Amino acid sequence: MKLLRVGPAGAERPALLDASGTLRDLSGLVPDIDGALLADDAALARIREAASAQGAGALPAIDDGGVRIGPPLARIGKIVCIGLNYHDHATETGAALPQEPILFMKAPDTVVGPQDTVLVPRGSAKTDWEVELAVVIGRTARYLDSDEAALAAVAGYAIAHDVSERAFQIERGGQWDKGKNCETFNPLGPWLVTADEIPDPQSLGLRLWVNGELQQNGTTADQIFGVAQVVRYLSQFMTLYPGDIINTGTPAGVALGRPEPKPYLRAGDVVELEIDGLGRQRQELKDA
Amino acid sequence: MKLLRVGPAGAERPALLDASGTLRDLSGLVPDIDGALLADDAALARIREAASAQGAGALPAIDDGGVRIGPPLARIGKIVCIGLNYHDHATETGAALPQEPILFMKAPDTVVGPQDTVLVPRGSAKTDWEVELAVVIGRTARYLDSDEAALAAVAGYAIAHDVSERAFQIERGGQWDKGKNCETFNPLGPWLVTADEIPDPQSLGLRLWVNGELQQNGTTADQIFGVAQVVRYLSQFMTLYPGDIINTGTPAGVALGRPEPKPYLRAGDVVELEIDGLGRQRQELKDA
Repeated sequence: MKLLRVGPAGAERPALLDASGTLRDLSGLVPDIDGALLADDAALARIREAASAQGAGALPAIDDGGVRIGPPLARIGKIVCIGLNYHDHATETGAALPQEPILFMKAPDTVVGPQDTVLVPRGSAKTDWEVELAVVIGRTARYLDSDEAALAAVAGYAIAHDVSERAFQIERGGQWDKGKNCETFNPLGPWLVTADEIPDPQSLGLRLWVNGELQQNGTTADQIFGVAQVVRYLSQFMTLYPGDIINTGTPAGVALGRPEPKPYLRAGDVVELEIDGLGRQRQELKDA
Repeated sequence: MKLLRVGPAGAERPALLDASGTLRDLSGLVPDIDGALLADDAALARIREAASAQGAGALPAIDDGGVRIGPPLARIGKIVCIGLNYHDHATETGAALPQEPILFMKAPDTVVGPQDTVLVPRGSAKTDWEVELAVVIGRTARYLDSDEAALAAVAGYAIAHDVSERAFQIERGGQWDKGKNCETFNPLGPWLVTADEIPDPQSLGLRLWVNGELQQNGTTADQIFGVAQVVRYLSQFMTLYPGDIINTGTPAGVALGRPEPKPYLRAGDVVELEIDGLGRQRQELKDA
């Protein structure tokens, strides 16, 4: 299923994109799309039944002309990000391949909808793009001991744009989080696609364009640590809860990896992102 | 005012410790103690009025015998931590004094009550203690340009125990967050003390004992970057919202700073923490 949330920021209602491409209102069926829903098999089954060929007509259609799409998940608990997780991206940045996953964090308040404005922070000269496969957790994951248990904890997938300010991240003393948590730095969506529709998360193409020009064109097959391994690994260091998100890293093609002068983002630029089966994002950049 | 939350984990109700030391139930007055309350001057005024000499009798007393104290803040948005922020702690770890604040993050799901059990993670050999002054945000802070504006964004203060696994933090490839986000790693409270009761946040003594032996005995006067400076600085890199927390760093005396064999924590150890005016914590360690 393709779950999403539509409406004004902060007042989104839950929706479904049905098999025929029609947007359906779920607000009569479930209060919202959040960790509690993802952990509730009965509620998910009700949505699935309503979405089936016979039941879809029972869900009111939403006119998608002009409706804003919000992030597909409410009340996100935490966002854990994996750094340097693609062979080609590690190579372009001149970094050694990590021996085990590198993790850093983004605050849930950085999340915006997939078409919302992204703000270039004040004082920024190095705002960069990163298309990423986001893994949405649906079951508590704690000291998992198999890849099967790890994948069973995954509710679904979405596109995340892990916007990054490289000077803040690397040149301002210390930890990467400083360049990862600016306002609007995590567009998410359009859809939360349930895991049953993504049989192999390690065979998804990811693409990103800036002003219409293709900049990133990778595949999750190139991930150093795949989804199951990442979930299992993280569960040794922290407990993952329903409604948590993992941004699993970005392939090659970011501005940081280019020769000088590196083509960092500025107000007026338009970034578009796409992952196979997960839809498409488009953001215009403005000054904060 | 000393605000707190009492009751079983996940079902705490809001309370007040009044001037006479009596615990008063606030649940008839406000739904909970969270960012929304801290940003609501009228609701805070209602509590203040009820807490005054004449009004306190109107608030039902809570028998504090055996009642669990939860974290004093619900629905925490994000926890931003400042690393190496005391001269004496930077010296003991052999680190250079930071030129600007080092920041890392803890997930809100690591927060537990001030007397709750702290879990030594599986595979941990280097679980360490850190007493810290936690700053609780009450007003949105974005690109602040003065120390006055920064202090005006502070709703109050609390004790935070920034429990840290040093091998996970330093020896496992990459960013500190890996050793800072284990389950139960952020005891908070007992009280959220409103800022009006802490006229100078740079003159507070902080102490921590392990099994009755004093290990940390510092003062916020030794902070490299004080509270106002930290809030102002962070607001250039991220937006702080009501209900966010800043852990402002720890003074000297952690296990990491000791000669080998360093006295890291194990199941059965008892840690007690105290900050002038902010109360006292006590945790027993158990294996995860």
